[in-house]
Parts: sequence; structure tokens; C-alpha cells
Amino acid sequence: MGERQVYTVTFLPAGRTCRVQAGTELLKAARKAGLHVNASCGGAGVCGKCQVIIEKGSVRGGKSEKIPAAFSAQGYRQACRAQVCEDVVVRIPEASGQRQGGLGTALPQRNHARQHVFDMDELKQEGGWSPSVEKVCIELAPPAGHDNRADAGRLLQGLAAQYNRRCELKSLAFLQKLGKALRQEDFQATATLEVPVNLAARYRLLDIQPGYQCHRNFGLAFDIGTTTIYGVLIDLETGRFLAEASCYNPQMSYGEDVISRIICAEKPDGLDLMQRLVNEAMNQLITEMLDKASPSERIGQQPVTRDEINSVSIAGNTTMTHLLLRLDPSSIRRSPYVPTTTFFPSFRAREVGLNLSDTCASLVYPAISSYVGGDIVAGVMASGMYSSEQLTLFIDVGTNAEIVIGNRDWLACAACSAGPAFEGGGITHGIRAVEGAISDFSLNPETLEPMNVTEGDKAPIGICGSGLLIIVATLFEHGILNQSGKFHPLGHPRIREGKSGHEYVLAWKDECAAAHDIVINEVDIENFIRAKGAIFAGITTVLQQVGLQVSDLEQIILAGGFGSYIDLDSAMTVGLLPEVDPEMILYLGNGSLTGSWMCELSNHIRRDVVEVVRKMTSFELSEVPGFKDQYMASMFLPHTDLSLFPGAAVRNNV
Amino acid sequence: MGERQVYTVTFLPAGRTCRVQAGTELLKAARKAGLHVNASCGGAGVCGKCQVIIEKGSVRGGKSEKIPAAFSAQGYRQACRAQVCEDVVVRIPEASGQRQGGLGTALPQRNHARQHVFDMDELKQEGGWSPSVEKVCIELAPPAGHDNRADAGRLLQGLAAQYNRRCELKSLAFLQKLGKALRQEDFQATATLEVPVNLAARYRLLDIQPGYQCHRNFGLAFDIGTTTIYGVLIDLETGRFLAEASCYNPQMSYGEDVISRIICAEKPDGLDLMQRLVNEAMNQLITEMLDKASPSERIGQQPVTRDEINSVSIAGNTTMTHLLLRLDPSSIRRSPYVPTTTFFPSFRAREVGLNLSDTCASLVYPAISSYVGGDIVAGVMASGMYSSEQLTLFIDVGTNAEIVIGNRDWLACAACSAGPAFEGGGITHGIRAVEGAISDFSLNPETLEPMNVTEGDKAPIGICGSGLLIIVATLFEHGILNQSGKFHPLGHPRIREGKSGHEYVLAWKDECAAAHDIVINEVDIENFIRAKGAIFAGITTVLQQVGLQVSDLEQIILAGGFGSYIDLDSAMTVGLLPEVDPEMILYLGNGSLTGSWMCELSNHIRRDVVEVVRKMTSFELSEVPGFKDQYMASMFLPHTDLSLFPGAAVRNNV
Repeated sequence: MGERQVYTVTFLPAGRTCRVQAGTELLKAARKAGLHVNASCGGAGVCGKCQVIIEKGSVRGGKSEKIPAAFSAQGYRQACRAQVCEDVVVRIPEASGQRQGGLGTALPQRNHARQHVFDMDELKQEGGWSPSVEKVCIELAPPAGHDNRADAGRLLQGLAAQYNRRCELKSLAFLQKLGKALRQEDFQATATLEVPVNLAARYRLLDIQPGYQCHRNFGLAFDIGTTTIYGVLIDLETGRFLAEASCYNPQMSYGEDVISRIICAEKPDGLDLMQRLVNEAMNQLITEMLDKASPSERIGQQPVTRDEINSVSIAGNTTMTHLLLRLDPSSIRRSPYVPTTTFFPSFRAREVGLNLSDTCASLVYPAISSYVGGDIVAGVMASGMYSSEQLTLFIDVGTNAEIVIGNRDWLACAACSAGPAFEGGGITHGIRAVEGAISDFSLNPETLEPMNVTEGDKAPIGICGSGLLIIVATLFEHGILNQSGKFHPLGHPRIREGKSGHEYVLAWKDECAAAHDIVINEVDIENFIRAKGAIFAGITTVLQQVGLQVSDLEQIILAGGFGSYIDLDSAMTVGLLPEVDPEMILYLGNGSLTGSWMCELSNHIRRDVVEVVRKMTSFELSEVPGFKDQYMASMFLPHTDLSLFPGAAVRNNV
Repeated sequence: MGERQVYTVTFLPAGRTCRVQAGTELLKAARKAGLHVNASCGGAGVCGKCQVIIEKGSVRGGKSEKIPAAFSAQGYRQACRAQVCEDVVVRIPEASGQRQGGLGTALPQRNHARQHVFDMDELKQEGGWSPSVEKVCIELAPPAGHDNRADAGRLLQGLAAQYNRRCELKSLAFLQKLGKALRQEDFQATATLEVPVNLAARYRLLDIQPGYQCHRNFGLAFDIGTTTIYGVLIDLETGRFLAEASCYNPQMSYGEDVISRIICAEKPDGLDLMQRLVNEAMNQLITEMLDKASPSERIGQQPVTRDEINSVSIAGNTTMTHLLLRLDPSSIRRSPYVPTTTFFPSFRAREVGLNLSDTCASLVYPAISSYVGGDIVAGVMASGMYSSEQLTLFIDVGTNAEIVIGNRDWLACAACSAGPAFEGGGITHGIRAVEGAISDFSLNPETLEPMNVTEGDKAPIGICGSGLLIIVATLFEHGILNQSGKFHPLGHPRIREGKSGHEYVLAWKDECAAAHDIVINEVDIENFIRAKGAIFAGITTVLQQVGLQVSDLEQIILAGGFGSYIDLDSAMTVGLLPEVDPEMILYLGNGSLTGSWMCELSNHIRRDVVEVVRKMTSFELSEVPGFKDQYMASMFLPHTDLSLFPGAAVRNNV
């Protein structure tokens, strides 16, 4: 395509400018300049509310039947349909949301967390680089009359002498290959060794190949999410990702959350079905990654084969892990919420149902409890908080929210029954962050006209988690919602009495792609407050248990998809996150997947994880006296105790 | 049947008597009295040479067309057909082999080794009683809100607290059963633990059952012989054998010795075939033993099921073990005779192809080398020589002979390429010890008439190992063979020129069940001398290597079937065994099977076997300088160095 031209767009009356590529719509340019333009339809060209006036220069498109010919002649265009093709000066009229005489209604700059970057070079330098499976090439003296040791003993002694590796041989398949493998290249062969997690233990012999084969050593890492399964194919010698792939967890057809999956597994043959579904998906991802992985100078021209994958690391929540391993999950969903196991011995990948070689090892991340799973432990490993001096709060917000607080000296965790509000669950028009989901929002406080920003700039179909957070925060900031999450009766057509209390209309039926008006009502807001309240109460309760306060926190790490989209100011405004310097907040991304591939690359991580799990104190919040009070106190915007949110108190005059 | 009457038989002219049950043939009574009676046909009633005269009392039967009516009237009867039915006096005439005027030609009393008895009570008292798999019943506190540890952790902590067992959980199948098994009987359950061989290691959890199930704990022991497979089903709580079974090794159809099996395994799919055959046979024996095993007061009325078999111990020679495990055996048969492995990790029984539960453990006895296998190591364990102060010589004579010399301080071993002479191989009319095999023998030195004793008292069809030994010893003792194993030309019809040098006719064609005369010729005797020479040279060579002499030996233990039949005097006469006090010699029986079930019952044995294998010095005789000289010196009857055989020298005036 080549590089596109870049032009300057100047917005009046605010006088703000921004530079955008040719072809960018004016609505997007306004957003980039931080300006509100009414847009109920999310930029889909439907509502006609984003009309702007071209005062200098020209644009491509933007005329429509929503704009009478006379206006069109005066330069009126629909901002969502008009594309920049040269430097241009654009006026946002009052009718489109611009506050008269002011500098424009600023669309708040969204303050997302900085990404936490895992430094692979640092890991290498610190001696942490040590794949969990290594290949070593060994040259043995061929047997002779005076030295007719058995093949196995000869190999073990050679590995000890040449590589200082004390090995154990547990695999019958290995022994079955050994004789021929050694003799094919005159007793030069490459051994595949599983590196022990415990330094005092022996290396385990996994495989033997004739001749030199050290350059081909591959691993897989998986994150088994309730919704999505991610996989990475890794060159274990360089740490390079050779391919990535992901797919929906096919168990989704049997329920969106872990509880419905467990219920399904309790039916006759249900557990087998759940296991088969996740196995099939993983095997499909493996095939896809092997197809994608391209040869390179280092590994040679031969494609990577499944037999060359020597280890697999897997992280997932406790239920996903139980279903993968066909472990009975039924006690997970019933008080007192007991899983079959929280630690998982090193299985063969075949045992886990993966279509890989007999000798391929698999590590499944240990869990802490039924609701603080291996995905969280993996995230903690990825975050590095367990080796940091800083007192860190780790939060993963998904269907439930899990929090971990601590540093290199201690760690404590809890699962917060946040409910699925942040994934669109329990919200009248809540949806996942699919195309058409309202994910950002601003408001003209006088007209109450919204600017709905949707995923893919499609006509709105619902509200996703990040949008919900911003909508509630914006409505609260502008005094439209009170501290209890109730609407002030303003007598405005966009705020009306609905079936679930008052509601705010985000988009009228004819402006959106839904068969109804898209609204947010007081029950939605109550559910939202419950969710954020449960999380915040979890944080304060765990801190209280260890004798600390929110103000002691030195770092916050957000994991999970939601963490990357979350607007930090909104999160503090509503009391989801503690009020801290946003610079203290880092976004980890898919911590579960990161922790998983880190295990592949660094046996130090595997060693540390044992320590981390041992060290972690798990709080069952419902059993902690005081949690209920914390929860009740958190059931307000932002909180009963405004001393915890001085900024919000000032901003909102509450 | 009730008890039979017992009568006295008096033989004249020797005047010897013996007491036998009613119905016993006079030929057997004479044998019991130690008297020679000519009997070429082995007592089959064919040769008519065993005529005796009834002088007082009467017998049932014994008349035949071989005895003219006149003689019959005088009391002549065929001894092999005349049955005792009252006290009787019998004269053995000169024609039937009795030396005139003498006290009778004494049939030498066969001096068999005393049986070595494994004292299970002693083992118990010494604290050695500890099955390799144990069952413990545990009662756990059910989970509660304040204690919602995972099932696996709860169990491991309970086993540590209640039984001081530090356990590891490696099995996915175990985890898959765990949740339901614990909850079925309100957290009372029985765990099956594999006891670690290394005391510092952890117990391994094999299985979990609801409620109390400790009383049902069963094990299997196998000896995989080249010819025969033996199995024993054991109650691991009492040590009682619940059933035994054996069958021919079905690989026999593909060759009688290990070399022909290896050659067969080298053909396409041959290794799979060999494995399948032994697997099928073992599985058939398992079914047979489960069917045979009867309920008892202790284990209850429920039949033993295959799921209740928790461990299997297997001993076999190195080739049999390789074929069982589908390990490439081809380098075993080629110089420098290298097996794939001599140690075998603890597999699951399923991996070894046995139709048992997923969790059943299997131990395969370690080997020393390609030709000193796990069967010999098992025999050493069964013999107890490794813990004895006495300098012991252990010999297992089969197709090859293996020897182990040592005591609790040191052990040395060697395989002697004896060849199959003792199993009938390489001997013109050699056969295994089947019905009709000549297994004992005596000679009237004047007439050279034989008394052939056959298995089952059937007409002779050939010579088995124990018979061969006695025949050679007898011919040598009577000066019919010289020290080189050549016949003195006596001009007697029973000693004639044959295709393979001179030969002695043991039975004429019409006296036996073969289509030819049964003979022993000089080539047979040469093969016999080679075999016994290889063994004796092995013994002296190993002793020489450790600076000892035959006279230092304090105990000799004979293993294998041949060991129980071997006539000790004959063995010393020909120089197969060193000349020692016969009281020093013990017969172990099937040491491989004994060692195998000892492993099931005593984990101390499993621990000790590691030490025994580590301690054992293996001599490759062909590589030892001096062996060839020892071998050449042993190629005489009994030996070149008669100072080693003072008794023989005196007896035979050689």
C-alpha cells in the first residue's frame, strides 16, 4: 500500500489540531484531538448527529440525505463519513455537541496503563534462560570386548562425564529406541533431557536421536481461557516465537462461565465431552501453528514437525484445568469450593490428550484454590511481582476478578465474586467487546447527547466492559448519577423511567443496529457497582488482613484483556481501582499465556513457581470477618469512605 | 484312595530289604534297595531282561511271553511288571545283572542336593517383610469453609500425619478417581502406595478406593524362562500363594534358544511378534491364576479381580526381558554382546503389555550383562548368598551356565558357554526330561547290561541331562571310558564302532520306543566334556581372578531345574562340580521365580538388589587371560589336575 500522506485538521471553535493520514474520517480526527462530537450511532453514518462545517480545504464524502442540500452547499458534512484528503479547517457546531463560546467539550484523554514488558535479554543475563527441555549431543566410545557396558549405562555415564548431567531413564519408549539410535551414527547421538525443577533431582531422558540434532528443540505454551484458547510455538534455543494461534474455547457452546461448564461436566459423559472439546481445539491450534511456522537459517529448511516439540506448558483457571485433565470438577462449584488438586505432576503431553510425541513433557501451572487458578499464578510469574521489592497489587478482571497482593517477601490472594458485568453479563445491553460494542463514550453535559465510540466504528449493538466503566464514570462525574448509582430526575428525554428503574438512552433504535433503544438502567448500574465493589472490597480486605492500607501500594498490575482497555481515570472515579498515580499502574496483557511461555523458556520460573505457590496465602473472602463491611462500604460511587478517593471527592463535589 | 498297605521286599542274594506300598513294581523296589537289575527298556515291559525269581510269598502280575511256561512255574517274573501285594522274598539271578556270589551290584544311591528353603518367618522377624505395594486406610476431615484444601493436598497431608508416609502423586488416573473416591465414604478411603526402593524417596500413590479395602492387596511374580513361563499369585498381606501356573514359552515355536529368538526378532515385525507371544502367555497365566485363586477367611468371599493386583515382579534372562519389553536385542548376540539396558525403571504393568489395572506397578529384575540376566540376579537374591558370610558358588545350568561367586562382601559372575548338552542339545539321542527320557542308569560291569531308569517308567526314547551325567560318570567309573572320554575297545556287542566314533548301546531298537538303537557316542561325550569343562573352567577362572581356589568354597547353590536332578557324586566324578562335601551343596529350585516373588513380599530385597547389581563384577571369560588354559585343563574326566579331584582319582585309579 505504501505510506499515506499525512494532513493537518484544525477544529474550531476549540482551535485544536491533529495530524492524520489521508482517508481518516473527521469523527476519528476529532476524537484524536480530544473533542466531543455527538454520535449516537458510533460513526456508522446512521444518526446524522455528527455534522461539522468544512471552513477551509475540502474533504472526500460526508454528504447524505441527513443533510439538506442548502446546508451541504455551506460545507456541512457528516463527520463520520467525511475523509481527510488535504489540510482542512473544520468547525464543530453547537448542535453537534460543541459548547458555545467555550474551547470545546473535551473528550477526556483515555489513560490506559503502560504495558509491562517482559525482558527476555534480562532473563538471559540473569542466568534465567534455561528451557525446561534441553538437547545435548554426545559422542560415546563404541562398545568393545573390554568395555561391553549396556547402551543405557554407557549413555548415562557419558552424559555425566561430558555434560555433568545426572540423568534418570524412566521411559520404556526411550529404551526401545536407544539401541538403533546409538548405532546409526556410530555412537554420536542427541539426547533430549527434561531439566529437573528441583536442582537436586536428576535430569530425565525423554528422547534420543542419531547424530547431531541440538538445533531443533521446540516448545508450546497454552493459555486455556474460559472464552479463548491461545497458543504459542517457541524455538527453545532462541526464545523466538515461531507462530501464534488462538480460537474460541469450543466448550463455550455449553455455557459461558465456569459454573455452567461444571454443570455440563456433571451430566453423563459430560466430563469426557468437555475434555474432548478442549483437546480438539488445542490439537487444531497445534496443527495451525506447525503450518504457520516458517523455516529459518538457524533451524534449517525443514518444517517443524510435531515430533520435535519437546515440552508444553499450560496455564488455565482451576476449572479449565480440571476439564482438560478430566478431573472431577463438581466440588469446585459447591461450598466449600474444593478442587481435586491444585498441583499437577509432570505428565506426558499424550496423557493430556495432545497429539504430540510420546516423550513430549507437559507442565500444567499449579493453582492456589478453586477460584484462584493456574492462570493467575502464571500471571504472577509473568508480572515478576514475586521477586520485586515493591508492594504490588495484581488484578485480573474477567468473569470473576482475582487479586494478588504482595512482593518478594509474601503473597496473598483472593477471588472476588465480581460477576460477569465487565464481560457484559448481567447488564441489560451488555455484550463482549465485539464489533458494534460501545467501548468509549463522552457526553455533552448540557444536551446529554452522547458520543458513542464503538468497536469497528459500527452502529452500536450494546455496551462492552470498558464502555460500561466509562459510561458510569461519565454519568457520575457529570452529576447525572448520584453516589448510590441512581439517576437524578432531570426531565430529559434521554433519561426516562424504564422497567428497571430510570435509564439513560445511549442510542435510539433507529441510530443503532439493535432492534431497540440501547440503554443503561439503574439495575445495570447496581450490578456494575456490585462488581467493582466486590473487587475493591477484596483489595481492602486482603490489605487489612496483612495490616496494610491502600496507600501502601507501590504498583498495580492489570492482567487479562480488560486490563488493557480499562480507562484508569474512570476506574478510579467509580472506585474500581484505588486512587493512585496512574504511572504506578502497568498492563500485563495475557499474563496466563506469558507465564506459560516463560515456563517453556526458563526453568528458573518453574522452580520459582513452586516457591510462589508455597508462599501464597489464600483468603476465602466469605470466611474473613470484616469482608462484608468492606463490601457494603464499597457499594457506592466511588466508596463510602471518601478519604480513600480524595481526587474523586474534589472532582465531583460529592 | 486311603492309605495303602506297606510290605517288606527282601532281595537275594544281596539280602537287602526295603519297604514299599502295595502295588509297587519289583523293579522300583530293587531300585529303592539300591540294587541293579538289567532293564534296557526302562521298565516298560519290553526287553524282558529284568527277570527275577519269587522265592517266598507271591506277587500280582509279571508273567509274559518273554518267560517260558516252565520258568514261570518256578516263580520267574518280569520285575517291571510284578506288583507287591504281600511281604515277599525275591532273588535276582545273575542273568538279570546280579553279580554271582557277591552282595549284589549296588545301584549307587543318588545324592541329590538338599533343598534351600526360604524362611518367610525369618524374613518377617528381621523386619524384611514389607510388600513393595502397601494399602493404608485413611480418615480425613471433610472439607469445610475454614479448611478447603484441595483433595490431593488433604490426602497427602493426611498420609504424612497419620502414617508418616511422604507421598508423591504422579498419576493422572489417580487424580481422576480421587474426588469421587474420597466422597463416597465420607472421606474414609484406602490408598495404595508403592513403597520406594530408596528410603529417602517418597512413596508413590497408585490407587485410591472408597472406605476400608486394606485386606485386599495382591501381587504377581513371574519367571520368564526361555522354555517355560512360571507365575505365582500372592496375597501380599500374608505372603500366601493363592495360585501358581506355568506354560511353555510360546516363542519356543520360533527357536529353542535365545540366539534363535533374537534372529527371529530381527526379522520384519519379529520383535513385535516375540513381545506379543510372551504377553499373551503371561496374560493367559494371569487369567488362569485368578480363576484358581479361592476366597479365604482373610480376604473375604469375593474372588480376586485383576484390578486388585497392585504389583508384578518379573525375572528373566536378558534376552527374554528385552523381548518382553520390545527392546532391540540384536546387539546381544553379536560381539561384544551389549544389551540395550541392564536396569529397568519401574514401569506400569500395562506398559509391559499385561492386562492389569492402569495403576499396577511392575518391577523387572535388573541384569548384569547380556548373558548374566535378571534370572540369575533373582536367583542370587533367592539364595541369600549376597548377605551370607560363606564363600558361595552359585550355578544355574541351562542352555548356558551362569556362575556367581562371592559372599556379602563381594560378588563376581560369568556366563559359561556350556552349550545345550544338559538340555539334550548336541547329543545324538539327547532329549529334554520328558516321559521316556533316560534319567538314571546303572551298569552290570561284567555283562555291560544297563539298567535304564526313565521318566514315567516308559520305554526309552532318549537321554536327558541328568541321565547323560550319570551315564558318562558310570562308564568312566567302570573304566569303559578313559580320561579323554574315549571308549576302551572291549569287543563287546554293546560297544561298537559308529558314525561318530565308538558308541555304547543303551537300548536296542526293539527294547525302546525309538525307531533306532539308543546310543551314546564319543562325539556326544566330547560335547558333554566341553559343556562341563566350560563350567568348571568358568568357576576356576573367576576364583583365580579374585585370588581364591576351589578349596576355599564353603557353599554351592544349584539353581534351575537341572540342579534338582543332578547326581552330586556323578557331577564330581566327571568334574562338573568341584569335589566338596555334598552337605555343602544346596538346591535352590527355580531361583528366578523365587527371587521374583521375594521382591513382591519384601521391599528390602528390592533395595538390596540395587546394591547387589552395583557390587557385582562381571567377567567376560573370553576376555580374561588364562581362561583358555583353564578350559583346556578341564577337557578331561574329571580334569587334568587330579589334585583337584582326589576322591575321583582314588575311586577310578586314574
